[in-house]
Amino acid sequence: METRAKRYAAIGRETKRPGVINVNPIQRGGMLTPEAERALLEFGDGYSICDFCLKGRIDMIRKPPVEDFLQDMASFLGMDVARLTNRCRDAIFIVLMALKRSRGGSAVVVDSNAHYSTYLAAEAAGLEVVEVPNTGYPEFRVRLDAYEEAIEEAEARTGEPPVAAILTHADPHYGNLNDPRPVAKICREHGVPFLLNAAYTAGVMPIDGRELGLDALASSGHKSWASSGPVGILALSSELAEEVLVRSERFPNKELFLLGCPVLGAPLATLMASFPSVVERVKRWPEEVEKARWLVSELERIEGVRQLGIRPKEHTLVCLETPGFHEIAKRHKRRGFFLYDELKKRGIVGVQPGLTRRVELSTYGLSWQEVEQVARAFQEIAEKYGLEVR
Amino acid sequence: METRAKRYAAIGRETKRPGVINVNPIQRGGMLTPEAERALLEFGDGYSICDFCLKGRIDMIRKPPVEDFLQDMASFLGMDVARLTNRCRDAIFIVLMALKRSRGGSAVVVDSNAHYSTYLAAEAAGLEVVEVPNTGYPEFRVRLDAYEEAIEEAEARTGEPPVAAILTHADPHYGNLNDPRPVAKICREHGVPFLLNAAYTAGVMPIDGRELGLDALASSGHKSWASSGPVGILALSSELAEEVLVRSERFPNKELFLLGCPVLGAPLATLMASFPSVVERVKRWPEEVEKARWLVSELERIEGVRQLGIRPKEHTLVCLETPGFHEIAKRHKRRGFFLYDELKKRGIVGVQPGLTRRVELSTYGLSWQEVEQVARAFQEIAEKYGLEVR
Repeated sequence: METRAKRYAAIGRETKRPGVINVNPIQRGGMLTPEAERALLEFGDGYSICDFCLKGRIDMIRKPPVEDFLQDMASFLGMDVARLTNRCRDAIFIVLMALKRSRGGSAVVVDSNAHYSTYLAAEAAGLEVVEVPNTGYPEFRVRLDAYEEAIEEAEARTGEPPVAAILTHADPHYGNLNDPRPVAKICREHGVPFLLNAAYTAGVMPIDGRELGLDALASSGHKSWASSGPVGILALSSELAEEVLVRSERFPNKELFLLGCPVLGAPLATLMASFPSVVERVKRWPEEVEKARWLVSELERIEGVRQLGIRPKEHTLVCLETPGFHEIAKRHKRRGFFLYDELKKRGIVGVQPGLTRRVELSTYGLSWQEVEQVARAFQEIAEKYGLEVR
Repeated sequence: METRAKRYAAIGRETKRPGVINVNPIQRGGMLTPEAERALLEFGDGYSICDFCLKGRIDMIRKPPVEDFLQDMASFLGMDVARLTNRCRDAIFIVLMALKRSRGGSAVVVDSNAHYSTYLAAEAAGLEVVEVPNTGYPEFRVRLDAYEEAIEEAEARTGEPPVAAILTHADPHYGNLNDPRPVAKICREHGVPFLLNAAYTAGVMPIDGRELGLDALASSGHKSWASSGPVGILALSSELAEEVLVRSERFPNKELFLLGCPVLGAPLATLMASFPSVVERVKRWPEEVEKARWLVSELERIEGVRQLGIRPKEHTLVCLETPGFHEIAKRHKRRGFFLYDELKKRGIVGVQPGLTRRVELSTYGLSWQEVEQVARAFQEIAEKYGLEVR
């Protein structure tokens, strides 16, 4: 253990070098602002926010101004109440546990492009998942009108309405952006609470939960709020807040399903520090999408490359099928890792090491120059291995 | 919102100034090592550990060496398997949810000095709490032999054995240290899994789970492992690991009750970076306790001050009743805040603002010189307001 221990004390990140472009879809929206980097050091100790806690509730701390901040965050999202959770998935799990207890149902309706953690949250909460289908290859568009059918199917299967319906705002596989409004309408008509998983959208694009008809919104601070992790965001309408944020019987000051205060030193401090930048950056969303569309058009010049999901892109998360690279991997001595190696040589990281059938990346927050560098790198690699670039 | 937003971007911590001594019991063991401060900056982005993830499991990442680290941490604790969770309370909640599902019980046995979050975890998991009493004022010693009775009472009340018995190794109120071995013996005889809440002990004092007879151990990285938060530790015997770390039906690669990967950028990186220091520092535990005992003897020279809990101290968390300060607060214009103010003037923070009936603090990791400074400060304040110091 002696030798290993030295390695632990000396861990350093390989990919955080100046000039290196990280295109990892889960990382682009979470990169810290300079303000957040300062806050990170200052609030590095786990309980750093709790120095001046008077009420035993982190959401009520006034120094630093956590209470104001949560209220401003709720307003920014067009919701009434905001709380922090450990992760986005914990926000979903909390809503499901609370609604299962208050309403007594045993199913939840989920779109078929949901993140794996949505399924795990449902399974851990003891709920059966009724899936809303998508249109399949190559568009994988969620059939929003089928929420009605799914809610009815859940009722038929379990004899009760589903505890909630969840829509993944922008899914993690194809980056398809879904319009929550038709789903909100169906949910309202059936009296089913509607939860939007906004892990890839809130914090990078404008969202008005009231206008979209949301009862609850879950998001991820380290995925799209320029915050250190882990930190999830749970925003609620005031009606649903009463149902979800129930108090403990024995400790009536504590919110039961949050298990009391989420401990949020550095994650909360960085979330707060980045918030003013986030409020500004969502206004630049149309240009961010423009960059994704341009990159898609450049990469589709490579033999066999085809963007999957809805066209043209409405989100910066891009999924491409890349059969040409996959053929090369079959005969390359580094197998699927060749693409990772070749990109890294060109200063680009964040593409899943070892995979070549499909490539997933995000252009969010890259400069035009960086997007061009990414396009050029893929084209160069294609040409090097004999793929045609039109 | 404009003006407030500027405040968020500029948040700074008041109490992290050079020369300021923080005696907050929840903070002493969590303060970052220099190695952790370096790791914090490098791994500040939420998914920074996931750059080279090949298996979709954070506990299997080899670069940085997370997989080795978790194995070494389990060995260090004398347990077989270690996982990270969001917080210590989430580790407890995960064990309770999993055992409730696998064993079907509906009660849990808990010592009456447990942290509030243990009660919340039980309540959220839908379990009835059967309490093991303590001896009350002034010692508040948990009656370890009464675990037998409590297990039998749980069986009588619910018709089933309790899903688990939990003991708080060092409690957060009085800092009483409990010997887990007699409880382990009772649990083994009754076939009830035994979980030790080691939030204030693992990471600051030596623990050998095998020798203590533990089935599970929960701890807190930001409370006692010199790690940025939030991060909890769940260590298990291999038998209980099979029962607790069940896989998702739909995503068999993912551990269900962890809801998949806990996202652990900076918290995990700092935990790893501090680990070699932690392995060393637990050897110095006897001297740490010595400092607490010395401080108690100095503070008890002040009129009316009396240490609560087991005497002499076996842990660095100290609880004192301070009726003299409480009398002063009644006639002071700052009320209970006078003590906080006076201590802060003398460079000491971390005593709960506004409270004067009891004072809780920890000497963990303070130098002898700092402990002396704390003693002198309290004595000076006492004399200033006319309390006798013998």
